Amino acid sequence: MSVQTLLMDFSIDPARLGDESGQKAVFSQLETVLKDYVPNLILAAEVAVDGGSLKLLTGKKGTTVSVRLFDRGLVTVNIEYYKEDSEEPLISFKNTKLLEGSVRISLECERVKLLPTIKRGYKFDVYLTSSDERLLEYDIDNVVFDEQSPFQRVQIVHSKSLGNMLVLDDLQNISEADLIYTETLMQRGKENYEGKEIVILGGGDGALLYELLKEKPKFVWMLEIDEVVMSACNKHLRPICGDVLERRKGPNYEIIVEDCMLTINKFIKEGKKVDYIFGDLTDIPISESACGELWEFMITILNSSFKILKPDGKFMTHGNGATSSESLELYEQELAKLKPAVSFSKSRAFVPSFLEDWIFYQISFSANNGA
Amino acid sequence: MSVQTLLMDFSIDPARLGDESGQKAVFSQLETVLKDYVPNLILAAEVAVDGGSLKLLTGKKGTTVSVRLFDRGLVTVNIEYYKEDSEEPLISFKNTKLLEGSVRISLECERVKLLPTIKRGYKFDVYLTSSDERLLEYDIDNVVFDEQSPFQRVQIVHSKSLGNMLVLDDLQNISEADLIYTETLMQRGKENYEGKEIVILGGGDGALLYELLKEKPKFVWMLEIDEVVMSACNKHLRPICGDVLERRKGPNYEIIVEDCMLTINKFIKEGKKVDYIFGDLTDIPISESACGELWEFMITILNSSFKILKPDGKFMTHGNGATSSESLELYEQELAKLKPAVSFSKSRAFVPSFLEDWIFYQISFSANNGA
Repeated sequence: MSVQTLLMDFSIDPARLGDESGQKAVFSQLETVLKDYVPNLILAAEVAVDGGSLKLLTGKKGTTVSVRLFDRGLVTVNIEYYKEDSEEPLISFKNTKLLEGSVRISLECERVKLLPTIKRGYKFDVYLTSSDERLLEYDIDNVVFDEQSPFQRVQIVHSKSLGNMLVLDDLQNISEADLIYTETLMQRGKENYEGKEIVILGGGDGALLYELLKEKPKFVWMLEIDEVVMSACNKHLRPICGDVLERRKGPNYEIIVEDCMLTINKFIKEGKKVDYIFGDLTDIPISESACGELWEFMITILNSSFKILKPDGKFMTHGNGATSSESLELYEQELAKLKPAVSFSKSRAFVPSFLEDWIFYQISFSANNGA
Repeated sequence: MSVQTLLMDFSIDPARLGDESGQKAVFSQLETVLKDYVPNLILAAEVAVDGGSLKLLTGKKGTTVSVRLFDRGLVTVNIEYYKEDSEEPLISFKNTKLLEGSVRISLECERVKLLPTIKRGYKFDVYLTSSDERLLEYDIDNVVFDEQSPFQRVQIVHSKSLGNMLVLDDLQNISEADLIYTETLMQRGKENYEGKEIVILGGGDGALLYELLKEKPKFVWMLEIDEVVMSACNKHLRPICGDVLERRKGPNYEIIVEDCMLTINKFIKEGKKVDYIFGDLTDIPISESACGELWEFMITILNSSFKILKPDGKFMTHGNGATSSESLELYEQELAKLKPAVSFSKSRAFVPSFLEDWIFYQISFSANNGA
């Protein structure tokens, strides 16, 4: 079952909506068109609102149609009905195109737009959001895992084009189609990990650890807090993480399941320093100012990380969507405040499961900038 | 100006919506939450509908809120208001997240979803559709060209991530970020065009002609009907078409502005045959059966094209989105009917401006399959 919501809107000369009789005439023409698509349509309520009016119609099987006439020259039409999975839609995709055309001709409007039908309350949610708050409908056709961990909602969904995909608190994280994400994060081919000591902060999907181990590092510590993420990925994202989450430790790696700050602080106390640190925790928060819990958490981690990094070491991390320039600038301002000073380079890659370009940072101590 | 539509829905135990008093209690709780986000909210109408009820509220500045209670355990909330471009939204993105959380806690529902705000009637339309009818919001921030030609609506819009993009009848066609489209269509690096004779059917954006000319063909005839597309692309898509649309002809190419069938029939009459034909016209139509105007047009073109193709020639064309398997199968069934028989290979590439994988065909006469 799901509720189908059809959103249509069209622009007409504001003069036609200027008074009550004009609005009535427009509505009456529209009603005639709609009756061809929604059976048994009758007017149920009329409400005068600031800047226009709203008419409410009901039709077959509890279908509701709300028509909002804005006297500034815009009309919105929302059609909503309940559909069992086995039922055909009330208005097929082909008929939505016909409806759009009928409105254009009958109402003599230049611009009319009908969005693809929005599905609500369906057994799987197909709508995710880009870093710049855009609505994206994915070709998700199954939910293979869904559990609330102590830290976040952990879902693995299946997409026809991306394969299995990890979704954390409604944010797309990584899919089977995202090797480019890991390779850009680690700058494969540009960085040499052989014989190096590496710390991964987060990385619960296992993909980064799996790819790093192929490069023969001396040792990798992966510090991940969420057991649920790891067991879900171990089961449903094997192509990207192999058996590293299953085995948990090997001759040259260990996954430590706790708050990453514990191990960082232990390393600081011991004077232990490593060659590479990967920041693979939460994305940089999107907000107008660098404040709030997430930012403070991120800044604390950043500061502490550099204390366990060798002078010629590198901190590698993902940033944000390439179009989220404000958030990226705030992050770079935080980097500029670090002591000792750091400098950074950036890489950019289109990440299939994000449906957008992503920015990755490679940060090192400024004194070693030329190295 | 634009109308902002916020769509929220949540699932609750159907028992709570089983009778009128239950629905009233749920609605009352919801109303309390909504009042914190929409000022001056008052109940304006109540309508009983098949399978539930609908309540209509109005608020500040003509805001309307419709609440639909489905007795099957689903509630949809649609908030709609008019916004001048200079005004701040009534509910910011951050507050939509807070509203979602408030509803989850206050209504004690496990699942609640609030989509990013939908913008309607805005000066540029940011919503396009994937080949499999999915809703995609693009980061379009300008319309640089918009004209109705005798054949189609021709728009060039600007996207923050893709650069300028050609949109024909609301379908994304090609952008400045889509060299991969042209290179996969022509199988660059696999096919040798040097000294070859080539016909392009369509190709009005000029990108294919521009790239083919770099491979030193003997001659290219480009048969494009829409003058408006060419002048728009010549002006606004220079990085992908260079000056080929400006010059119209050169020592080894000519653009013929008319129905492509005229030149195809002329070549048939003359017995003229070429090495390559590119089908760069409309996409394969998406429909359940291979009928309708567009399909007939496509099949006619296909049949005629093979009459002007050398025995070892190739017909290269784009197919459809990789997830539109039905449409691709229908196309392949049409190929199977061709006489003399043909065989084909397929390529696949993610096309940035389509935000999905696309299928491309390379078709040749079966007798030469092994060549």
